[in-house]
Parts: sequence; C-alpha cells; structure tokens
Amino acid sequence: MTNEEEICRGRKPVLDLLTNNPSRCAKLLIANNVRPPFLDEIVDLARSKKITYQLVAPEALDKLSGGEKHQGVICKLTQAKMIDLEDFLRNLDTNIPSLVVVLDHIEDPHNLGAVIRSAEAGGASAVIYAKRRSAFPNGTVIKTSAGASLRLPVIQVVNISKTIERLKECGFWAVGLSEKSESSMWNEKLPERTALVVGAEGAGLSRLVSEKCDMLMKIPIVKDGTGSLNASVAAALGIFEWSRTYRI
Amino acid sequence: MTNEEEICRGRKPVLDLLTNNPSRCAKLLIANNVRPPFLDEIVDLARSKKITYQLVAPEALDKLSGGEKHQGVICKLTQAKMIDLEDFLRNLDTNIPSLVVVLDHIEDPHNLGAVIRSAEAGGASAVIYAKRRSAFPNGTVIKTSAGASLRLPVIQVVNISKTIERLKECGFWAVGLSEKSESSMWNEKLPERTALVVGAEGAGLSRLVSEKCDMLMKIPIVKDGTGSLNASVAAALGIFEWSRTYRI
Repeated sequence: MTNEEEICRGRKPVLDLLTNNPSRCAKLLIANNVRPPFLDEIVDLARSKKITYQLVAPEALDKLSGGEKHQGVICKLTQAKMIDLEDFLRNLDTNIPSLVVVLDHIEDPHNLGAVIRSAEAGGASAVIYAKRRSAFPNGTVIKTSAGASLRLPVIQVVNISKTIERLKECGFWAVGLSEKSESSMWNEKLPERTALVVGAEGAGLSRLVSEKCDMLMKIPIVKDGTGSLNASVAAALGIFEWSRTYRI
Repeated sequence: MTNEEEICRGRKPVLDLLTNNPSRCAKLLIANNVRPPFLDEIVDLARSKKITYQLVAPEALDKLSGGEKHQGVICKLTQAKMIDLEDFLRNLDTNIPSLVVVLDHIEDPHNLGAVIRSAEAGGASAVIYAKRRSAFPNGTVIKTSAGASLRLPVIQVVNISKTIERLKECGFWAVGLSEKSESSMWNEKLPERTALVVGAEGAGLSRLVSEKCDMLMKIPIVKDGTGSLNASVAAALGIFEWSRTYRI
C-alpha cells in the first residue's frame, strides 16, 4: 500500500535520497515530460545506485502525490531502517562532547524535519523521538529536513522517560527546555554530553519527562508580549547553544 | 473578491485577530455546529469589538477555506494596514537598543510568519520585507506567526538596499547573515542598533544588499556534513544573539 507518507517527491529531495540513502528507495518514477539535463542526471544517478526507474505519464505522479508538487519525480520508499538506541550508544565516541536531541510529544513531520535539519547543522549525534502514530522517516520529514534525516541518526523509541534514564546511565546530562524554569540558558553552560529535551509548544514537557531531567532551562523571551517560540526554533536555539560551546 | 490569502481561519488565530487587531476583521463567519463554551466566547468577543458575525453551514466554511482546517471559524480580512518605514523610524525610541529584521527575498508566508514570531519573542522592534507578489499580512502569515504579525510592526518596502541605507542614516548597523563570511556570529558582538539582514536559503543575500551591509557574519555549522540552515532558523539564531545581549 502506498500512501502520502511513503513517497518522496520533488527534484532536490529525490536527488538527496538517491545520493545519501539509496537503500530507502524502492522504485523511482519519472514523468515522461521531464527533459535533459535533469533527466540524464536522475537516470545516471539511479543506474549508478542500481535503482529501478520507470517513465510514467505526469498524471500518474499527480495522483500518487495527492495534489502536492512533485516536479516530475517521485520515489516510492522502502520501510525505514530505524537506528536502535543501544546500537547508537555502543558506537558513540565517549571521548568527545556529544549532543542528542530528545523530542517529547513532537510528532508533526514538519517540526520533526526542521529539528533534524538544525541538529545536523549544529553537530548533534542523533535525534530521538517517541513512536506513536507517525510513520517515519517519511517524504515530508525528508523534505523539511533538507535531506538531513537521511544522514543523521534518527532513533525511534517507545518511552521517552526510560530513554532519558538510559542516556543518563551513559553519561549524558538531561537538560529540559521549559518556560517555567528560573534558569536562563544564556547564563548556564550546557554539559559536554547533553541530552536536550524539547516538548511540544503550548503543552511543553510532560510532568514525568520533566522530572527525569537533571536540569530545566528556559529560553528568555520578552515579557511584555504575548509571544512564544515555535518548538523547532526553541530546539535550534538549544542546539546552537551547545554547538557554539563544543563543536565550532 | 475573497481568496485563501484574505481569510484567517482556526480558533486560536481568529481569537488572536479579534483580540489584537479587530480592525483587520471585516466579517466573522461561525459554523452553525460550533457549541458553547467556544461559541459564547467568540460571539462575546465579536460583540465587544463591534464585529459583524454570521452563523453559516459548515460546508460554506469548508469551501471558503479551500480544504484547510478551520475549526468552525473564519474571519474575512480587510486590506492590511501596513506600517510605513518613516513613521516607524519617527516613533522609535533612540535611547534604547533596537533590532529590526530585514528580509531579502524571503516571500514564503510560512517563513515570513516564523520570522515575525521569533522577532516578537526576541524583542525586535520590527520586521521589514520587500513587496513583490505576496499579499500580506494574510491568514497563513498570521497563523504561522502565532498571532505575532498582528502585534509586531511589519513594514513592507519597495527596495531593500535603499531601506538599509535609510536605517544606517538612523543609526542602525546593517549586519548581514552570510555563510561566506569569515566572521562567526559567536565571536562578534552585535551592535546596539542592529538591522539583521537575512536572505533566502540557498541563494543567500543578493550582491547589492550584501554590499550595503556594514558587516557580514556567518552562523557556524558543522563542516563535515552537507547540512544547511532553514532561513527562519538562521534569523532566529541572529535575533536571539542580539536579544541575549541587550534585551533580557
């Protein structure tokens, strides 16, 4: 069964997928009105990666894409090869600083993709999120992450609280972002091994997850407004706070 | 003529609009299946702001909304009351630090809304962008900005280069974000009066705009990856770099 969540569409996202993670690509569909030089580029790439491709009527892609722009190319995706938490921890270099981003209740694929993109650019080691209803990594996540979800380890776990405990056993300090905290992220130094825990906007961190954190920090925002931060922006501010201290 | 760009949909966005900027609301449409307590809340609010409202069939809202979720409420918007650059500069308090965010070639309403939201939360005085094809402020911008576009001054200008010159005459330093710069934002102090100039991702700042800047700075990202930053994330990192220095 193919649904919107199991395809990757658009020239740049498909090129990224074929280049970085060809094993995710079950089949490549190209509209028969796609012209050189892009046609040659995509066909050569598919051949070099031994990916089956097929030329089809543009209307077939329209239908598959459910009205979203596809620019003449769609990849049908194979099941995701998720990375296992224990495998990740086993392979982690313990001699250098490391950041993992842990998402509590963030399931929107746009937010997930945006966080993965910032995490890669900021030098994080992985993004961890809880498996619920969301299928992942899907086309929306790949696209929003600008391909980063195909390169950075993304780990799906069952229980965020238990995952935080496990990370702490492995030397990580769990730092939760919370508007309610009195400590400002601008005044505290993030630990060398940080598990940055980010909740959904509005709801924030769940009580259980918040209690598992070693410390809670807020990103100060102006008090006189009714403003708030988007969850993926809050995550990016935390990621780059760590990055400027340890990675750059 | 009403099109998708001239409505505001959804309970939270419409409540924000009615509360903060009722003059933008030409008419409020409420689906006749909306129940108390929300029904009472929205009707009371509309009455107190003297806004005409009408109960309509849910299908009428579906049609107006073009398939997007509306949660039973849609506002038809009046023409935007844009703020004029000269009015803004005249009313600006010159005794306190000030940040304006200047967008070069960012026209996507989601990115625009996201930048406005971060700008408000970080204490910026205004967001400036170039008028091209985009109608603004529209429903998508209001929603993505979480209402911030109704509170923070948003200034539409014809020419970004000339606007930067004008800001410089008024004591602002123009700081352009550019991946190509050798100076890291983490090592430089942003000026008290900063005009933060942000370009579209990929293309970056246009040459002309880049030459008008007093300085260019990069946000360092990991070199070994193929990663990049979303334009609204780059803007947020710049905004909060200024904010932590002067506002909080």
